[in-house]
Amino acid sequence: MRAVDIIMKKRMGEELNKEEIHFLISGYVDGSIPEYQISAWLMAVFFKGMTFTETGYLTREMINSGEVLDLEGIPGPLVDKHSTGGVGDKVSIILAPLAAACGLRVPMMSGRALGHTGGTLDKLDTIPGFTTEIDIEQFRNNLMGSGLAMTGQSKDVVPADKKMYALRDVTATVESVPLITASILSKKFAEGAESLVFDVKCGSGAFMKNMEEAERLANSLVETGKSLGRKVVAVITRMDEPLGHMVGNFLEIEESIDCLKGKGPKDLMDVTYRLTGWMLVAGGICSDIDSALALCREKIENGEAYDRFIQNVREQGGDPEALLKGYGTFRSKYSVELKAAKDGIVQEINAFETGMTGVLIGVGRNKTTDDVLPYVGIELKKKCGDSVQTGETLCVIYTEDVSKNDIALAKMKDAYKIGSDLFSVKDMIRKEIKAI
Amino acid sequence: MRAVDIIMKKRMGEELNKEEIHFLISGYVDGSIPEYQISAWLMAVFFKGMTFTETGYLTREMINSGEVLDLEGIPGPLVDKHSTGGVGDKVSIILAPLAAACGLRVPMMSGRALGHTGGTLDKLDTIPGFTTEIDIEQFRNNLMGSGLAMTGQSKDVVPADKKMYALRDVTATVESVPLITASILSKKFAEGAESLVFDVKCGSGAFMKNMEEAERLANSLVETGKSLGRKVVAVITRMDEPLGHMVGNFLEIEESIDCLKGKGPKDLMDVTYRLTGWMLVAGGICSDIDSALALCREKIENGEAYDRFIQNVREQGGDPEALLKGYGTFRSKYSVELKAAKDGIVQEINAFETGMTGVLIGVGRNKTTDDVLPYVGIELKKKCGDSVQTGETLCVIYTEDVSKNDIALAKMKDAYKIGSDLFSVKDMIRKEIKAI
Repeated sequence: MRAVDIIMKKRMGEELNKEEIHFLISGYVDGSIPEYQISAWLMAVFFKGMTFTETGYLTREMINSGEVLDLEGIPGPLVDKHSTGGVGDKVSIILAPLAAACGLRVPMMSGRALGHTGGTLDKLDTIPGFTTEIDIEQFRNNLMGSGLAMTGQSKDVVPADKKMYALRDVTATVESVPLITASILSKKFAEGAESLVFDVKCGSGAFMKNMEEAERLANSLVETGKSLGRKVVAVITRMDEPLGHMVGNFLEIEESIDCLKGKGPKDLMDVTYRLTGWMLVAGGICSDIDSALALCREKIENGEAYDRFIQNVREQGGDPEALLKGYGTFRSKYSVELKAAKDGIVQEINAFETGMTGVLIGVGRNKTTDDVLPYVGIELKKKCGDSVQTGETLCVIYTEDVSKNDIALAKMKDAYKIGSDLFSVKDMIRKEIKAI
Repeated sequence: MRAVDIIMKKRMGEELNKEEIHFLISGYVDGSIPEYQISAWLMAVFFKGMTFTETGYLTREMINSGEVLDLEGIPGPLVDKHSTGGVGDKVSIILAPLAAACGLRVPMMSGRALGHTGGTLDKLDTIPGFTTEIDIEQFRNNLMGSGLAMTGQSKDVVPADKKMYALRDVTATVESVPLITASILSKKFAEGAESLVFDVKCGSGAFMKNMEEAERLANSLVETGKSLGRKVVAVITRMDEPLGHMVGNFLEIEESIDCLKGKGPKDLMDVTYRLTGWMLVAGGICSDIDSALALCREKIENGEAYDRFIQNVREQGGDPEALLKGYGTFRSKYSVELKAAKDGIVQEINAFETGMTGVLIGVGRNKTTDDVLPYVGIELKKKCGDSVQTGETLCVIYTEDVSKNDIALAKMKDAYKIGSDLFSVKDMIRKEIKAI
């Protein structure tokens, strides 16, 4: 078998078989196939795509390139959720304890903020004492305790993905649906998830700007998972304005606490309930989405979800008392308010602009090596559909660098659109694709 | 400037500018841009193409990557011909002395056999004493003497092409019209040609199997040459059956001698005259193709073309007496004849099959490191349109390895199609594209 023939086959748009994918990926990892052949193949995949079966082979090869998290003996169902990334997206922090309270075990592997989107790990880091760097022993203990474990990708898992992602990054081959699919699925399955629910975000604040793109990715995730014999659900959710009222690191922990206490904003809870509901169905806890949603609501109302959250905070070294003392008081040095320039109804809060304002003030980062700040952020006092009067506060921006206040203010002014039209609130759930 | 942005730009199908092409190619040659980025870019070029202007920039950058042959002081017009490769294609060996006899100087740079196509250098090597490895001094002397110099690509010329071709070869990015164009043009111009005539072969024995592909390459060669301010003509010629009667190394030298003595077969001479004619027009020796063709015929008939050939043989170390003594006698150990199985008219001699039979018996090579044999080959006694009777010899196969006779015979049997239909001889010249 020769790598050049496999590249050629893909260049011609043909489906590669299991042996060919194995040859390519194992050769890439062991160094017998040079990076210049892999990058040519990646570009051919960008143009010619991969079938779901083929993407499944790739996913399996990537999983096999490293260690698989040893969750032997942990009784299931083990279900994780993955979001393609959005602005104000703190769903994981609410959903994981909620799902655990409903009877799932949630081995949750999250990422860090990059570009306009936030990162769950950066948010969790603001909880006093909390660490997301836990070893496998701790990981197992958490799953058997609170039922959830919050961590980043471990080093030994899917080395092929790390290597390949770095290569894709410098060869302009990141934006390929099958490559994205295999990258996501391999990590999630290697980290112990049996079934998966995806939050494929669609809109100005998402990577997928339109439904066509979102559906393509959602379909690829579900069908590839299916080809691997897994239960996968993809929910396409709206990401036009930021989710909830808070965009920040500690600010989003605060809002997550609100949600867990039953005081969460509707848009955020709609998404959280739906995703958690499908996790329960995929994991076999509930037989249908309606009973799953009812169970979720019950576990929020009776405080069990919140209790799981606090239990997990303790498990991961956090200090719940310090956290609750910080609630509403951990704030950056400076703040500035955006006032409405006219009467009307909020028509739009551009999520991308809001996210980029976040990057500017330190919520997120441009490069993976940048630092983030814990207490900066944006509090959206008014959301789409809200009536406002001239001079009313639309949002508060918290910063640590007063010199950035004016630019941040100008950016948020651009993000907000106020008009006189009636605003019709749209369903947060745009489409669901399932293989369960 | 970053390589990844340039790759992305090409991936999106945009035209790269001069600075971007310079950044990429100079960075590739000096090692500051890694091969994995170049190969991703090559694959993007394969899918998205390049404009003629862009291909011109690439050609110029490739020329600038190394030395340009110093032909300072050699009075022009310097015109070379390049063939995309065919079976039985000995045109260069006839055309170069003919064009020189007509008043051009021909710095001819040829290649070696590869795959089913033959190589001029391999053929010239069978002339007793002849060497194609001549230095720049000798090269200049020949141009001032016989008017032609026959050589391979010199080492210091277009290093970017050598490096890039090796990379394309292992990344399945060889078959890209703009990359082929830049590769050919850069070498030809760096070797001193001012104007160029291309023989773009089309048919079963050519790399371009149909007119669409042939026209695309012809057009790219001409238009890119034009963007560089050069005179270029591309002639698309038929390559369905082998050209002439001989397919071999020394065998083709013999047939070239026949042609130079005015006894060449019509198909071969039609192509040779037409290509030489356009060289004369491109070089400004003749004002139109008809007067050019007339001049060519005159130089064959009066023996001047043949004299130039003999003069060049001497210049390059060859022994004309030994050559002429070998004519008709230098033959391999074994021979086997293919007989007609029925009466009829030859409808087809598949040039690709014939070429591959050649590779089998040692006329050509599969890999560049294979050796070729001087005296093996195939003599086509019957060509398309010829009537044959059962038992008549269609072709003679000369081999050095008797164990290959049967397979060679079977392959040539497959190559020949005999039928009862009348055969209409088609014009060898299918299309001409010019920028003069």
